[in-house]
Amino acid sequence: MINLKEYLKEIEPIESYYGQKAKEREDVLTKPRGSLGRLEELVIEIASMKRQEIPQLKRKVIFTFAGDHGIVEEGISAFPQEVTTQMVYNFINNGAAINVLARQAGADIVIADLGVASEMDIHHPNFRNRKINTGTRNFTKGSAMTREEAVKAITTGIDIFNEEHAKEPIDLVGIGEMGIGNTTPATAILAVIGGENIESIVGRGTGIDDDGLIRKITAIKKAIEVNQPRKDDGIDILQKVGGYEIGGLAGVILAAARHKVPVLIDGFISTAAALIAQLLNPVVCHYILASHRSEERGHEKMLEILNKKPILDLGMRLGEGTGAALAMHIVEAAVRILSEMATFESAGVSNEE
Amino acid sequence: MINLKEYLKEIEPIESYYGQKAKEREDVLTKPRGSLGRLEELVIEIASMKRQEIPQLKRKVIFTFAGDHGIVEEGISAFPQEVTTQMVYNFINNGAAINVLARQAGADIVIADLGVASEMDIHHPNFRNRKINTGTRNFTKGSAMTREEAVKAITTGIDIFNEEHAKEPIDLVGIGEMGIGNTTPATAILAVIGGENIESIVGRGTGIDDDGLIRKITAIKKAIEVNQPRKDDGIDILQKVGGYEIGGLAGVILAAARHKVPVLIDGFISTAAALIAQLLNPVVCHYILASHRSEERGHEKMLEILNKKPILDLGMRLGEGTGAALAMHIVEAAVRILSEMATFESAGVSNEE
Repeated sequence: MINLKEYLKEIEPIESYYGQKAKEREDVLTKPRGSLGRLEELVIEIASMKRQEIPQLKRKVIFTFAGDHGIVEEGISAFPQEVTTQMVYNFINNGAAINVLARQAGADIVIADLGVASEMDIHHPNFRNRKINTGTRNFTKGSAMTREEAVKAITTGIDIFNEEHAKEPIDLVGIGEMGIGNTTPATAILAVIGGENIESIVGRGTGIDDDGLIRKITAIKKAIEVNQPRKDDGIDILQKVGGYEIGGLAGVILAAARHKVPVLIDGFISTAAALIAQLLNPVVCHYILASHRSEERGHEKMLEILNKKPILDLGMRLGEGTGAALAMHIVEAAVRILSEMATFESAGVSNEE
Repeated sequence: MINLKEYLKEIEPIESYYGQKAKEREDVLTKPRGSLGRLEELVIEIASMKRQEIPQLKRKVIFTFAGDHGIVEEGISAFPQEVTTQMVYNFINNGAAINVLARQAGADIVIADLGVASEMDIHHPNFRNRKINTGTRNFTKGSAMTREEAVKAITTGIDIFNEEHAKEPIDLVGIGEMGIGNTTPATAILAVIGGENIESIVGRGTGIDDDGLIRKITAIKKAIEVNQPRKDDGIDILQKVGGYEIGGLAGVILAAARHKVPVLIDGFISTAAALIAQLLNPVVCHYILASHRSEERGHEKMLEILNKKPILDLGMRLGEGTGAALAMHIVEAAVRILSEMATFESAGVSNEE
């Protein structure tokens, strides 16, 4: 059983010495200095995270967590709640976007049920049944979950990461989620932490219409009024207006940071998980890479709070970890450049005059 | 021997029927409509180019062409001219950035000498010795090449593509280049075609200092004054202020369009080649995808003229085809999504309410 308070203390800052060594090598490779732009920055960051002068990426894993949300009662989603369950089966049957993109990226995928409404009878090597509850409660009427459940969501995420990392060390993590209605808790989390006006950050999620958008705004306002989450207490926010999958992903981020593994956050929901994680220990930000800028309104604001620049900007808003999977190609390119390119000296190429 | 005038007539517009069919399929895949953003747009474009309802990408090839530039006499580059030759050897020995990134993308690579200053004794399956001349002339003193050479550069590019396509059909092309000094002709091409003020589009290339930048501006102004290239005549511009590798890449673009193969242009130089190609036949634009936004000033303006939105924006300015290689992952993702994802019906997932 993980003691969260103790676990949080074990997260250490990155060591920029290794990034400096990576930069020194980068500067003698056969290309003009700095000409690979973001790729050069990325490998320096990753070297500092992993404490490797020439970092290696062997095993990539995408953690996609599912959960349901009582708030769907308020009519805030374009899709019915049953879709969460159906999509978990779709993940297991390799039919979803994340399956296609993880396969392309050469990443393993771990699907976990942290709080899906239905009971699912799934026995599959990629699936973890870690259900905490059958969905959150409608948080316009009180807390989404108990404080114990909020802590358990986070420690469950840590557990799932740790189990996977123990099987075979993970070099790069991506996170993603599935949960009908979950842009609503994510928006509430941003509103509380960023002190934002709801109207300026709320988006259409999977594609809700104008009436639904008004219901969504009303629900979030009511939730914050009813619950009064404390803006500096990540567990309090998660408990009152969060979700089980969001808590689980916050746990994965903490565990990745604890094990010095870079973690690619995905879109709006997984970035909300990062907002929770950094309240628990701001040092986790050292290990976070923003995979892409989501089309969902408010994501930009989240990235500002985290002070992260997205790698990709492709107008995506799917979730599941799809943006993280795509960004893995870019991160891997950055790492390969450093380890596989020739130097001016080894290739006999003249340097700048 | 290719008759360029006749060849240009054989380029046909894309057929949007196939894109429409691709879109219909995209809309029933298990994800909210449009939620994969640019990926969905890309596969629609590629279906229309390739006349395939579900396009396939088996073989990817990057064409990296090299050439030298007499204009280096004017002190417009941070690196000495010998680097062009040295980098061709580096390409052959797999030590350059494009080797690393093409390998990662699963793309074949074809290196060709279109006009390198030195005589190179290379016998390698990836290398084509198609030297037209040992570098262009200093175009502040007259034409960079003869009109016959300009046409030959283009038809040589066509030839190289055709040979490769005949060996095994190509599904996706990337283009790139190596040529010390070649941001200078590329800037001159943009200045002529776009009617731009030199100061507003000139950049630092591989990293020239302030004095060098002034020499570069002076050289381009003089070149345009001395040669008076005709802004609607692609061959005239190529002859007067272009380069052999730029002409060759224009040829590859024309050949790709002729064979209905999408072509990913790379950075500043290869986009200059696209500017030349579209003057010869504007329909080539149907087959062009902009891989990334280069850090080189002026690239943005080129993309505006071509009306192309870059896929990536990573602050890169290396050339060689490196941006094209990275963008191949995104294009491939788009194509895989369409052919590998489940539909709402096949996966038993409920669609929007």
